[in-house]
Amino acid sequence: MKKVRVSYTTSSTDFYFSASFSYLKQIVDSSRCVIITDEHVFDAHSKKFKGWNCIVLKAGEHYKVQTTVDSIIEQLIEMEADRKFTLIGVGGGVVTDITGYAASIFLRGINFGFAPTSLLAMVDAAIGGKNGIDVGIYKNMAGTIRQPSFIFYDTAFLKTLPDAEWRNGFTEIIKHACIKDAAMFRELEFYSPESFMRTGKINELIQRNAMLKAKVVKYDEFENGERRLLNFGHTIGHALENQYELSHGQAISIGMTCASHISESFTRFNETGRVVELLKKFGLPAYASFDKQKVFSVLRMDKKRQRKEINFVLLQKIGKAVVQPIELSHLEKIINSL
Amino acid sequence: MKKVRVSYTTSSTDFYFSASFSYLKQIVDSSRCVIITDEHVFDAHSKKFKGWNCIVLKAGEHYKVQTTVDSIIEQLIEMEADRKFTLIGVGGGVVTDITGYAASIFLRGINFGFAPTSLLAMVDAAIGGKNGIDVGIYKNMAGTIRQPSFIFYDTAFLKTLPDAEWRNGFTEIIKHACIKDAAMFRELEFYSPESFMRTGKINELIQRNAMLKAKVVKYDEFENGERRLLNFGHTIGHALENQYELSHGQAISIGMTCASHISESFTRFNETGRVVELLKKFGLPAYASFDKQKVFSVLRMDKKRQRKEINFVLLQKIGKAVVQPIELSHLEKIINSL
Repeated sequence: MKKVRVSYTTSSTDFYFSASFSYLKQIVDSSRCVIITDEHVFDAHSKKFKGWNCIVLKAGEHYKVQTTVDSIIEQLIEMEADRKFTLIGVGGGVVTDITGYAASIFLRGINFGFAPTSLLAMVDAAIGGKNGIDVGIYKNMAGTIRQPSFIFYDTAFLKTLPDAEWRNGFTEIIKHACIKDAAMFRELEFYSPESFMRTGKINELIQRNAMLKAKVVKYDEFENGERRLLNFGHTIGHALENQYELSHGQAISIGMTCASHISESFTRFNETGRVVELLKKFGLPAYASFDKQKVFSVLRMDKKRQRKEINFVLLQKIGKAVVQPIELSHLEKIINSL
Repeated sequence: MKKVRVSYTTSSTDFYFSASFSYLKQIVDSSRCVIITDEHVFDAHSKKFKGWNCIVLKAGEHYKVQTTVDSIIEQLIEMEADRKFTLIGVGGGVVTDITGYAASIFLRGINFGFAPTSLLAMVDAAIGGKNGIDVGIYKNMAGTIRQPSFIFYDTAFLKTLPDAEWRNGFTEIIKHACIKDAAMFRELEFYSPESFMRTGKINELIQRNAMLKAKVVKYDEFENGERRLLNFGHTIGHALENQYELSHGQAISIGMTCASHISESFTRFNETGRVVELLKKFGLPAYASFDKQKVFSVLRMDKKRQRKEINFVLLQKIGKAVVQPIELSHLEKIINSL
């Protein structure tokens, strides 16, 4: 196990890499904790949860809504949870988002930590303190930014991870490579997906990505600059995700291809082919036909919009991204021409 | 008009005392603001709201719930509000609590300010960044701590304030006097309520109380010490408020009398008589019969509880309060004996 502490504006997160879930009881008082997890994780790893207070949610993005938060709060009241309780989100991104949000508002804020169980949550969702819920088709419309006290990495959880979930995780890893790490991009081009999935190599890859993201967040916790780069592929991706039956990975993958093409008009980016090839190699879709008007109506409510402009993340080259405000009307034209 | 800036941990609040509501347009861009108010305030001062985007809520604590927040978020989406929008809560404590909460979670947090219209909101509720909603009979069970960018004091709003609302405000003023300001306590004993209500003297009293609270919050924003003193009378008060048909002022007034009596057992406080007399002079109830078991079941879920103890605010003398952890079982005995 390796412990790394990352400090943010007013708080810090302890990262426990290559850890074992059973060790968690050594860093917290389990009688003063409540685990939030979902049915899938609970059923697949029920032994791990013995001796813990648990709130088990229905699984899926569909339940990342206020009603679920209401139910968590009601159960915490029943459990007589007080301000010194810690919530621990054990699950994928939906579970960590809801847990972080519930902990941020319950009794005006209690401690929380995560044990992410999906690759995507390990390299992305669990890190950086953004939490929230969806409102209708709008993703993460309500939420806060508040850092977990700890993130606990037990890759044993990945043994039961479905292939589609591996792909979701690799989407964010490829995103990190695109915006910040050309060397990792080349490594991903060189090795097969399986060579990461079935070996100890995954621990190394997870740590590299977690630290990449944590470092970006550390210097721009409230997303006034650098942190925006992490939205690469997410503007169009999010607009697609809740409208179509796409996984987060599929939606963001298509979003990254779109953003690569849009970059060509602004930064003369000329490596869209490499991005598309890498996505395909990891089993992700690069293109899809979609109702452009419908996507555009969601884009207009994107959190990154300001007046008539949207801050859009473009690639200059593999490993180097920039944020550029683009007029919505201009963006609409380019998207229509894709 | 007098402007005072108070800085907190990571943000600051500008207090505009003795201000005129019409001046608000000079400090914000009204096209990028949404006013949140309630029917009563909107109807009584409709002229003031001309040229502003408004969301008008049903009036009353009964509506300080998640459903109201959901409806605000839906309306903000319809208005295409973005991250640079400012919400302005114009109303009493319910409106400022909901506005602060909605602004704290919408798009993971946007700016907000207040123009409090009740005496209670002016001297207490609008200050200090605590916001939230009730969950069932539990007050402020969900919320955050986040400071308003500005608080705008226009005492013209008080001209239409019902007498019961004046009394609610004086409850918190008397609380401030009890815990922190013996000189103000003597002043309140000396002058008649009317001499504050009908004269310019009210501006001075409001500013004194607002600054008293802001100073306490400044040095303990997240309530680890000194700020707890502001809960004097609120532990039992809150347990009474949502169970009985009591106004906040009435409930807290009874709560202060109880807390004064409880203080006698712990600190040898011997001025309960003066507290009771002052409350009565300002038209507030000092005693009430209530179902002690029912109140106690709510107390067990008080936010200030930790394990089997509750941090209870006691008076040592008029103007000097202390926090003492009291065992719930011990507290139950004392309350039963009152």
